[in-house]
Amino acid sequence: MADTKVYRASTTAPVNIAVVKYVEPLRPDERIRKGNQARESITNHHPSPSRYWGKRDAKLNLPTNSSLSVTLSQSDLRTLTTASCSSTYTGDDSLLLNGEPSDVSGARTQACFRELRARRAALESANAALPKLSTFPLKIVSENNFPTAAGLASSAAGFAALVQAIANLYELPDSPSELSLVARQGSGSACRSLFGGYVAWRMGEKEDGSDSKADLVAPASHWPGMRALILVVSASKKGVSSTSGMQQTVATSGLFQQRISTIVPANMALMEDAIKNRNFPQFAEVTMRDSNSFHATCADTYPPIFYMNDVSKAAIRAVEAINAQAGKTVAAYTFDAGPNCVVYYQEEDAATVLGAFAPILAAAEGWKDGSVVNASVKLDEGIAGTIKEGVSRVIMTGVGEGPLKTDEFLVAEDGTPVKR
Amino acid sequence: MADTKVYRASTTAPVNIAVVKYVEPLRPDERIRKGNQARESITNHHPSPSRYWGKRDAKLNLPTNSSLSVTLSQSDLRTLTTASCSSTYTGDDSLLLNGEPSDVSGARTQACFRELRARRAALESANAALPKLSTFPLKIVSENNFPTAAGLASSAAGFAALVQAIANLYELPDSPSELSLVARQGSGSACRSLFGGYVAWRMGEKEDGSDSKADLVAPASHWPGMRALILVVSASKKGVSSTSGMQQTVATSGLFQQRISTIVPANMALMEDAIKNRNFPQFAEVTMRDSNSFHATCADTYPPIFYMNDVSKAAIRAVEAINAQAGKTVAAYTFDAGPNCVVYYQEEDAATVLGAFAPILAAAEGWKDGSVVNASVKLDEGIAGTIKEGVSRVIMTGVGEGPLKTDEFLVAEDGTPVKR
Repeated sequence: MADTKVYRASTTAPVNIAVVKYVEPLRPDERIRKGNQARESITNHHPSPSRYWGKRDAKLNLPTNSSLSVTLSQSDLRTLTTASCSSTYTGDDSLLLNGEPSDVSGARTQACFRELRARRAALESANAALPKLSTFPLKIVSENNFPTAAGLASSAAGFAALVQAIANLYELPDSPSELSLVARQGSGSACRSLFGGYVAWRMGEKEDGSDSKADLVAPASHWPGMRALILVVSASKKGVSSTSGMQQTVATSGLFQQRISTIVPANMALMEDAIKNRNFPQFAEVTMRDSNSFHATCADTYPPIFYMNDVSKAAIRAVEAINAQAGKTVAAYTFDAGPNCVVYYQEEDAATVLGAFAPILAAAEGWKDGSVVNASVKLDEGIAGTIKEGVSRVIMTGVGEGPLKTDEFLVAEDGTPVKR
Repeated sequence: MADTKVYRASTTAPVNIAVVKYVEPLRPDERIRKGNQARESITNHHPSPSRYWGKRDAKLNLPTNSSLSVTLSQSDLRTLTTASCSSTYTGDDSLLLNGEPSDVSGARTQACFRELRARRAALESANAALPKLSTFPLKIVSENNFPTAAGLASSAAGFAALVQAIANLYELPDSPSELSLVARQGSGSACRSLFGGYVAWRMGEKEDGSDSKADLVAPASHWPGMRALILVVSASKKGVSSTSGMQQTVATSGLFQQRISTIVPANMALMEDAIKNRNFPQFAEVTMRDSNSFHATCADTYPPIFYMNDVSKAAIRAVEAINAQAGKTVAAYTFDAGPNCVVYYQEEDAATVLGAFAPILAAAEGWKDGSVVNASVKLDEGIAGTIKEGVSRVIMTGVGEGPLKTDEFLVAEDGTPVKR
């Protein structure tokens, strides 16, 4: 009798926010080409570290530098993904993302499917009793628990959940670190979302990328009091700082080589040390310096890339004011490829840090009950006004766990997507 | 009979805008100390190029890198300074600046006075017939022909005029390059305002700074068609990007060493070549890249220094759009230590460049007759809106001459300031 069963497995996966940054460039085929970009540089002999960029290998998605991130709690930010397969499925592999069909023909997604199928196929070869899941079409359904409007990069959680869900479906014995090799090929930062807590992505040295993977620096339980307040900049304030259409890679930055050869290795060592010793002032300083350094190399590209805007800068000044008035470092800012500010702080300093932002952002969505505490820190009027005007939503969260297997399915037993 | 004459000499001096930048840091005694600044860095072993910074020698005001600027026309922007001295003057040396008494006790001004007096004293020693001007108190009166509200750094023109006026008063035989050694000690960029046209400030190598001076790359007549449109950002839009109170020097930037050791020397060579060959696309690309690189190192300091704001970035996008739509490079942006955008272009492209800005800035002060031409370049609505809202004044000018001796005096024959 033919196997007509619908096989299913579900997982959730977290978002992570890097404190030592690697943000991968758009691939050439993903970049929108416009005006300036087409013109050739006149100064080709300009000292440009282009040989360091892109990735060491574009296909394997190897990074130019190691990075380190904090995994955020899935109570607040997570992707839930169900992977299913069946001999009864017809057509190609498919992905339904937040209720919309999503293209899986891209090189990144295809690389993940291919790698995972190969691992399943190896198991099937070794054990003839196993159903031949590797030969069945995949039907994947995925949902985020946070609105797209939040403007958070969800590709890390998305690819981590995709890879983990299929690994669960295929009953692969691979460790999170081994799966991170696969997730990396979908989205670089996704490899860090396969662990909870404090996670390093070691760039590795090997040509085949087999040592470019994530590993655990410390679990969430090592330093559970780490909190994050995300200031989501309203879309109307993003203005001209958002420049995806005209981006170059950081290859054109003459300062980039210095960052990857000297600054990042030093920051990685300092950051691991800070985490090991739960040394928040050191964690904070390295986080802020690394964010500054990363955005500096972006602004040094030609044409320049600006992810931060005046609202972001007001958030930086606010964090500086909080630390100055507290008389010690209780908060750290960091920015990914966008204007949103992530403020790391410790639970014990919640009153000080939240107390500075809550009064001016009382109208913003996202505050949790009891979080609007008395304000001991007073922000400058200009800074407060810019933040009030520019931030429409906050996300209160903290360090959290890695992917969690779940019995919540987004694909029904008959193979149809679950209506929610 | 005692010499009771009031000796007078007047000069005008121009503003210059660097295309390969060196912006000197605030001296420790000029910096306002606040909160963050007092706290010591936790990561002192962070790779920091502090040994490269400040100046090579703070007292001699030696820079960390060479720089190159375009001198702007004095018809639009100039300082007029009269230096006078007399045995009848009582009290200390004095300076009246734009009608207000100005402190001359600072180390910078004192260094200029001391150097110039020493040169005069040497002449007087060699020729007993010369009046002993070096022993008389100096009374200096100075005025800018542009409003302070324009927010332009006037210290370059100011110190160049001060030094040249006293040199004229003392009838010093020194060349502009020799006087640049003196002006440099007042304000680094002032040394470049002793020449017209295209001017390099060679950082030099000698410990005593005797080779750290300005020289002429090309006179204005070599490339007379160079024009500059300055977009002056309104004070209300400067917001939190202006951070003078919390500035650190660039010493804390890990990327700064790369800029001064590699990027700037390459840009100097490319820029001199571009000017020699009147190659505007190359001039423009190096100008834009160098501005990006300079501001990147500022943003990489800890805490970060942001001179540009969202209006500045909109101006960058506007210049990119102008070049893209023109199908060739006709405009270049550059920013000094503030949000104002200086757009360099050639006279032959005036219609294209001015035509892009004039329609959206029709309400701004400063347009010259006939400058609002037909607009062939259309700017994106978001970019145009940000510029319209943020720019209150424009200055239309171009490359110009160096200091000019004049018979217009701001000190009357009786030694009193001229009422104007």
